[in-house]
Amino acid sequence: MVAVAVLAAGKGTRMKSDLPKVLHPLGGKLLVERVLEVAETLQPTRRLAIVGYRRETVREALAHVANLEFVEQVEQLGTGHAVQQVLPHLEDFDGDFLVLNGDAPLLRPETLQQLLKVHREKGQAATILTAHLPDPTGYGRVFCDENGFLTEIIEHRDCTPEQRENTRVNAGIYCFRWKDLQKALPQLSNDNDQEEYYLTDAVNMLRPVTVFDCDDYQETLGINDRLQLSQAYGILQKRVKDHWMRQGVNMIDPASVTIEDTVELTADVTIEPQTHLRGKTKIGAGSRIGPGSLVENSSIGENVTVAFSIVRDSVVANNTNIGPYSHLRVNANVGEACRIGNFVELKNTTLGYKTNASHLSYLGDATIGDQSNIGAGTITVNYDGKHKHKTVIGQGTRVGSNNSLVAPLNIGSGVTTAAGSTIVEDLPDDCLAIARPQQVVKAGWKPKWMR
Amino acid sequence: MVAVAVLAAGKGTRMKSDLPKVLHPLGGKLLVERVLEVAETLQPTRRLAIVGYRRETVREALAHVANLEFVEQVEQLGTGHAVQQVLPHLEDFDGDFLVLNGDAPLLRPETLQQLLKVHREKGQAATILTAHLPDPTGYGRVFCDENGFLTEIIEHRDCTPEQRENTRVNAGIYCFRWKDLQKALPQLSNDNDQEEYYLTDAVNMLRPVTVFDCDDYQETLGINDRLQLSQAYGILQKRVKDHWMRQGVNMIDPASVTIEDTVELTADVTIEPQTHLRGKTKIGAGSRIGPGSLVENSSIGENVTVAFSIVRDSVVANNTNIGPYSHLRVNANVGEACRIGNFVELKNTTLGYKTNASHLSYLGDATIGDQSNIGAGTITVNYDGKHKHKTVIGQGTRVGSNNSLVAPLNIGSGVTTAAGSTIVEDLPDDCLAIARPQQVVKAGWKPKWMR
Amino acid sequence: MVAVAVLAAGKGTRMKSDLPKVLHPLGGKLLVERVLEVAETLQPTRRLAIVGYRRETVREALAHVANLEFVEQVEQLGTGHAVQQVLPHLEDFDGDFLVLNGDAPLLRPETLQQLLKVHREKGQAATILTAHLPDPTGYGRVFCDENGFLTEIIEHRDCTPEQRENTRVNAGIYCFRWKDLQKALPQLSNDNDQEEYYLTDAVNMLRPVTVFDCDDYQETLGINDRLQLSQAYGILQKRVKDHWMRQGVNMIDPASVTIEDTVELTADVTIEPQTHLRGKTKIGAGSRIGPGSLVENSSIGENVTVAFSIVRDSVVANNTNIGPYSHLRVNANVGEACRIGNFVELKNTTLGYKTNASHLSYLGDATIGDQSNIGAGTITVNYDGKHKHKTVIGQGTRVGSNNSLVAPLNIGSGVTTAAGSTIVEDLPDDCLAIARPQQVVKAGWKPKWMR
Repeated sequence: MVAVAVLAAGKGTRMKSDLPKVLHPLGGKLLVERVLEVAETLQPTRRLAIVGYRRETVREALAHVANLEFVEQVEQLGTGHAVQQVLPHLEDFDGDFLVLNGDAPLLRPETLQQLLKVHREKGQAATILTAHLPDPTGYGRVFCDENGFLTEIIEHRDCTPEQRENTRVNAGIYCFRWKDLQKALPQLSNDNDQEEYYLTDAVNMLRPVTVFDCDDYQETLGINDRLQLSQAYGILQKRVKDHWMRQGVNMIDPASVTIEDTVELTADVTIEPQTHLRGKTKIGAGSRIGPGSLVENSSIGENVTVAFSIVRDSVVANNTNIGPYSHLRVNANVGEACRIGNFVELKNTTLGYKTNASHLSYLGDATIGDQSNIGAGTITVNYDGKHKHKTVIGQGTRVGSNNSLVAPLNIGSGVTTAAGSTIVEDLPDDCLAIARPQQVVKAGWKPKWMR
Repeated sequence: MVAVAVLAAGKGTRMKSDLPKVLHPLGGKLLVERVLEVAETLQPTRRLAIVGYRRETVREALAHVANLEFVEQVEQLGTGHAVQQVLPHLEDFDGDFLVLNGDAPLLRPETLQQLLKVHREKGQAATILTAHLPDPTGYGRVFCDENGFLTEIIEHRDCTPEQRENTRVNAGIYCFRWKDLQKALPQLSNDNDQEEYYLTDAVNMLRPVTVFDCDDYQETLGINDRLQLSQAYGILQKRVKDHWMRQGVNMIDPASVTIEDTVELTADVTIEPQTHLRGKTKIGAGSRIGPGSLVENSSIGENVTVAFSIVRDSVVANNTNIGPYSHLRVNANVGEACRIGNFVELKNTTLGYKTNASHLSYLGDATIGDQSNIGAGTITVNYDGKHKHKTVIGQGTRVGSNNSLVAPLNIGSGVTTAAGSTIVEDLPDDCLAIARPQQVVKAGWKPKWMR
Repeated sequence: MVAVAVLAAGKGTRMKSDLPKVLHPLGGKLLVERVLEVAETLQPTRRLAIVGYRRETVREALAHVANLEFVEQVEQLGTGHAVQQVLPHLEDFDGDFLVLNGDAPLLRPETLQQLLKVHREKGQAATILTAHLPDPTGYGRVFCDENGFLTEIIEHRDCTPEQRENTRVNAGIYCFRWKDLQKALPQLSNDNDQEEYYLTDAVNMLRPVTVFDCDDYQETLGINDRLQLSQAYGILQKRVKDHWMRQGVNMIDPASVTIEDTVELTADVTIEPQTHLRGKTKIGAGSRIGPGSLVENSSIGENVTVAFSIVRDSVVANNTNIGPYSHLRVNANVGEACRIGNFVELKNTTLGYKTNASHLSYLGDATIGDQSNIGAGTITVNYDGKHKHKTVIGQGTRVGSNNSLVAPLNIGSGVTTAAGSTIVEDLPDDCLAIARPQQVVKAGWKPKWMR
């Protein structure tokens, strides 16, 4: 049996924000959501979030997390004090109790699982996660004997110069035998400079305590300001991008790309520079995305190109070319082998097989059949100031340049409309529609300012 | 009393440019402007720029700097020779004399102030700024005794292998007691391989000389080619971006962003990747800028989004959304809660509260009231080939799609114009304007090539 | 006499691709093309590519390489086995024989030439290229005597802990005296764990063998997965960009830029961030490209700006401004001092001196004379559904806003067309053309939903 408590009570003063620290987003998820996700991989019996600063806001932000219990820490009097608040919640609990930091989102599930495994194998009172920092200045140092058992945790300020040479620091992540911790917690004292109750004091009451080194110190980093937040994002992003490259994805300049961990890629996808893939996005084999593109919550087929364009909440079928300078805004459904081109916006619009809208068009609330061509400068007039109306166009229809299609409008198949027309009435199949005046020429004319 | 001399006479051969080295721009300012800005923080009594190569060009470029005296060094015969040219200008001066390099723009004001402070406290003939370089190859090494007083400066080529182990190098930045330097300068000799007069020889004549270490060696780096210029920009940018992140600004991928040091941000601003903020730009709290955006000399309110867009010399009020693919070219003044959208360009144009121009429009020299809607494809015809004319539109007016508005033009409030209209005459309030022909349909028609 | 054999038979399993490893592209060229280019600088008498996995595909991809002989390695049984396949091809050859890896594209020509030079000066049986790796784990270590002669190559797994301290590794690049290697190759055995024939065993049969250290270990890196592919691109890009900066090119943020090695730049060109120069592109002095731009196979004159734009297979003359948001798609030929602006696409179009197309236009298959102005929203209707037709416009002509120009069409010089016109018939010089209906106003009108 496992219980996990996540420390989520702090304000995070150095974030310079009203938002509680653990609610800051990191790559599409909140900091504390990431920590809870990692905890979930242990399949814990109990999940507790210790909340304090603006705790109603934190509760609301985490209301969607299943089986999460909120533990209130009304005043924030230290990590030991935070965990003391758990006591009434776990009175009868008898199992392993893990303490995680809501502001340390880089911990890998594998490491946490390993921590629990080591703890159980060694059958000790507690196991403490440690890491060797390149620059441990300011961190509490962890000392252990030759068998890997804790001898002492010493705060940086209390270390001798030789002790400061020790780069092994306390990551603040622990696995306790709850029954032992339960007895130690009430004995904590705040008789120290900060007048706080420290969880490390509880650790020091327990023996034996195993020290478990995390190979990659980056996993243990906590976030205290926006600079560290951006660094954490860099670390997460490197993991995601290295993973996909090892799976056969090409990246021309990975450092300039961001890929959220909700995205699914395939071997032989190419990501060009300055491209961002977000949300529930899938990209099929042979597709090339970027440069300068954003794809969010969209499904992109195989052998598609998306260049200098934005695709959101949309679907693009195989062999279609998007861009440059296209915007699939929402609910665009583009068929196979289409061409969506320069300065074209699609919204709530479906295009059939091999249908093109190549230049300077806005298509909203439209359904267009196969092998039709939308002339340059065509605009669906879908909005009457209050309601949106639909435009339906058949197969093999050619809408002329600079047309306005005033919806609601049905245009048949095999239709041609003349350039510059405003189409206000429905058109049957196989017709030509013209709505433009005769051309008048005044010979020898000059503009006023030239006369 | 303080006098500052900035060495600005060199050609900078490795820049491969006609432009004198110190006039190369670095993040919106010239190299030598940055050095003069740092010098200014000492509030010097005298400011001297020693100019040589293309000195008229340098004078013109610095004509705007208040109280700057130009000292001519007609031939460039070394740093000592450069400072010798100052002698006639400071005959009666009695105070501290600082020598700065016009090509070393990374020095922080705090460091320079500290250098002066140390110099004054120790009351010595001179104080020399030094730094420990990771790779000091090629630099003159500085040796001092246990009290921090200079014993010797030895050029790299004259160092023994052990001496080369010393990583403390001469930054070429000095603070002199002028009366002492005044006596030393005339005694310099050019009896050396390069036949140059070295300022280090003057330093070697003076005693005692204090050695003052700069903690961050990057501050002392000089710029000799464009590679170093780009590296210096990276260092400056890191300072600016780290500063703003510590102030509560979010940056998703700071390395891809540039922010000139003239920009003002606020906590809870988010800067997306590949975004560039230049000139006198201000961004309000809660606003999100980028990805792929450039904002220059503009004032952006609170809770504004600017995505994949360019905003120059413009003002955007709170809660407005700009982009993607918008261009606020110059003197756009966009009200609160507006939406400027896809492929829209604004120039010299004012929009009221909740007014939208969402698609494929060019609005130039226009003033548009509150809650109006500009249809997709609308163009203000503001140019008659010689003059620009104004378009004025009232409140709650809806301009139809693909309209041409031929200026000068006054359109009232509550007006509707039909899609595809060219409006050439003024419109009163609450009217409908149509300027388009009947739609004609030819049934059974096929294009020539299909017949 | 020099013969060069390039190992190009491997599958490259970790690339996760059907494409043979050596055919993966790296910055516009295939991996093996890059290696062959380097080999070519030795002006070899014989060039051999040892092909195996999907060898027909490799042959086709390299069919354009002059005088390249293909050597088939039907089964891939190790590097020694690969080189054994060369034996029948070089029976009578008497000269130096170099072995290169088709997946190691970072080797510099200078290094290869130096390897050959050292080999010839020392007159030995073989010379082996080595490098000191920061992390040599997994690589075979090379040991030599004080005279630089090989004593032993030991695989990582067979090294003692002390031997592993040696960071000098075998780069897998060799120069042999062919007559010696010819005798050694038939004696190779596959009596080892992998049951492979190793070329290192042949090296161990020859004596004396010179060890030649490559100063920059990056040159020796081979590519085994897409992560290494992206890292190799970063290394190549740094070389290219550092080169151009040293030649006087400004780069604001070089890390965000890519420049293929086929591009030609000039001093005093400025490359803004997030800009990509590809193919046979030339940029003239004083031009500023970017941010957010892509220029491919194009010739850009002097003092041109290209901002937030794409230029492909086109020519731009001096003093012209392109962008933001322009797309010169193919075969655009833009004259001097033109302005191509916001949301404008050009295809197969020529513009004369000082002619502008500043907003929301598509110009395809058009030829436009000097000092003409194309109004915002103008579209050349160049496509009748089957054929493309040409539009020709003279000098000093002003096409009105939102015009459709229905091709084939000839418009003279000094012509004015009214805003909103669709021009379907040719226009003589100095005329005004109008094709629009009277404006009708219905006073007191309200939209249906407001009544």
